[in-house]
Amino acid sequence: MKVGGKPYRTIWLDDDGESVVVIDQTRLPHAFAARTLLDAADAADAIRTMIVRGAPLIGATAAYGVAMAMRDDPSDGNLLRACDDLVATRPTAINLAWAVARLRQPLLHAPRASRAELAYRLAAELCDEDVAINEAIGDHGAAIFAARWRDLGETKPLTILTHCNAGWLATVDWGTALAPIYKLHDEGVPVHVFVDETRPRNQGAGLTAWELKSHGVPFELIVDNAGGHLMQQGEVDLCVVGTDRVTADGSVCNKIGTYLKALAARDNGVPFYVALPSPTIDWATDHGADVPIEDRGAREVTHIWGRDAKGSRVEVALAPEGALARNPGFDVPPPRLVTGLITERGVAEASKEGMQALFAAKAA
Amino acid sequence: MKVGGKPYRTIWLDDDGESVVVIDQTRLPHAFAARTLLDAADAADAIRTMIVRGAPLIGATAAYGVAMAMRDDPSDGNLLRACDDLVATRPTAINLAWAVARLRQPLLHAPRASRAELAYRLAAELCDEDVAINEAIGDHGAAIFAARWRDLGETKPLTILTHCNAGWLATVDWGTALAPIYKLHDEGVPVHVFVDETRPRNQGAGLTAWELKSHGVPFELIVDNAGGHLMQQGEVDLCVVGTDRVTADGSVCNKIGTYLKALAARDNGVPFYVALPSPTIDWATDHGADVPIEDRGAREVTHIWGRDAKGSRVEVALAPEGALARNPGFDVPPPRLVTGLITERGVAEASKEGMQALFAAKAA
Repeated sequence: MKVGGKPYRTIWLDDDGESVVVIDQTRLPHAFAARTLLDAADAADAIRTMIVRGAPLIGATAAYGVAMAMRDDPSDGNLLRACDDLVATRPTAINLAWAVARLRQPLLHAPRASRAELAYRLAAELCDEDVAINEAIGDHGAAIFAARWRDLGETKPLTILTHCNAGWLATVDWGTALAPIYKLHDEGVPVHVFVDETRPRNQGAGLTAWELKSHGVPFELIVDNAGGHLMQQGEVDLCVVGTDRVTADGSVCNKIGTYLKALAARDNGVPFYVALPSPTIDWATDHGADVPIEDRGAREVTHIWGRDAKGSRVEVALAPEGALARNPGFDVPPPRLVTGLITERGVAEASKEGMQALFAAKAA
Repeated sequence: MKVGGKPYRTIWLDDDGESVVVIDQTRLPHAFAARTLLDAADAADAIRTMIVRGAPLIGATAAYGVAMAMRDDPSDGNLLRACDDLVATRPTAINLAWAVARLRQPLLHAPRASRAELAYRLAAELCDEDVAINEAIGDHGAAIFAARWRDLGETKPLTILTHCNAGWLATVDWGTALAPIYKLHDEGVPVHVFVDETRPRNQGAGLTAWELKSHGVPFELIVDNAGGHLMQQGEVDLCVVGTDRVTADGSVCNKIGTYLKALAARDNGVPFYVALPSPTIDWATDHGADVPIEDRGAREVTHIWGRDAKGSRVEVALAPEGALARNPGFDVPPPRLVTGLITERGVAEASKEGMQALFAAKAA
């Protein structure tokens, strides 16, 4: 996607062909700054400190971390140590383990002298594959969204509500939930996005708003409380979100607050779509209730980061000193609230049968 | 309720017997500071800038605004101008117009020389009446909540989710939604309150958390996104909120986001109560959809106020520069989502029939 008119991915090789450059997402939306990762430890730090985030992008960063480790020391010991260190950075991120496993096995079986070259090639392939998957999600989603726009008479921009950031910044390019929106926008279909700010970490206000603005897609930021009212008023034509994990029954684990928007969508007859690459489907977990929900720290609730009048990034307290807080990171809308799962292979009903029909081999 | 062990109301006459003192709620939870209103214009400013907020407290402040206007110039013209100016400060809350109307008619029919004294007396009566009403709401609500606690086996604290601030600070004393909680707590029933932070103005994080903490009621602050998940997990025994206006069909206009919590409560079988003084019932408006919803400024969404490391209250930006935002102030959960309306006369079904049964004379 474009920043200042120039196309970017979220991760690329530096001019030396070895170091890896990423966008420092902790500084967005207040500053757009690249950051160079010089070795595997840098890559692990970038994931741990959320300089990069979003399941697909974490996987891509870890893959390049393995590649840099092989450049520095292609021994078995270093390979396994680097893989372990990278996987341990965010133990809950499903794509992270998946991406590292994709490199580890072929590398273990390759001659040491060729490991560095092979690892860089596999990492590049993984990135290209992520882009292709997301572009396919974009095409399938755009077809559905365009049909909705036609059904509504094409008299005004298609209004789309999204929660958190499942955009370009969460992937190597395109995004998942936002991919159909970029496709539509680039095709000339008028769209207007309602962006949930997504407390407590404000990925909507900080990342989704920034990337839509950078690419020139019209949007309005809203607080997480506002979406239900906008749906009651008929102002939202459809909802689309990403997901961290879809269980075998079609339950969608996603950023905290997704469930509330899914309820409001159902109550107002607004289609509610979830966009995901197929590696996000967790065939081994039967029900949404079985997904462990990460409890994050209280400080994300009692405090917030923002840009002060001088342009500096500062943290301010919102609550009385000493206030306790609870901070569950995700919730799980049940399948009955989901209109469809938009994947790289097309749209599936949020059910075991629906997903099996698209991904028969994996479900067997 | 108590602050630092000392009982307070939210509004009182200064030692001169003419000026009005309020708690500056824009400075909470970071500082507890009184503010003196010297005339009707000060009162209107205090309402407009949300130094005071909460439907009953707005009504009380407006009543004293009329009184100060009568002290300064008891003419018909000044009376009508002051009433109009005060009513125009906030469009959604019905108590404001009700309180001003309660003073306007008797004052218009009173001799000019006695208007100031009459206005101060009527304003004081209105405040005392608010306290009595809220205490009665507390008694009726506490009976229901205690029954719920008994039904659940009394094995753990009763967990109550509330949105925004319908507490002591929103009224002259006790609060509406929080009155039953204070009653239960003071009676020794163990309670635990989940406090929605209530973006964009964070009345939950700033006011509800502060007043519960000041009075010693256990609570945890949560982001607005979290309540649905907690209800799915069975962690919420009941919800209670206040309201700015209940229309004749039992629709509840309240702070933006209330609708989402009402949906989640219904989806999980959690009782959802609305606590209100009867002046909040708008018998003249048939349906919730007819309530004008205040659209507030974008800056409340794109920015937030907090306390920096030095203890100063500062505003920080959350969004990219130039980001647009939409900011509806209220939403309207339909009556079907409301378990009961807790009033000073008892509990009514959220319907015309239910409210008429309690308030027959007014509904005639």
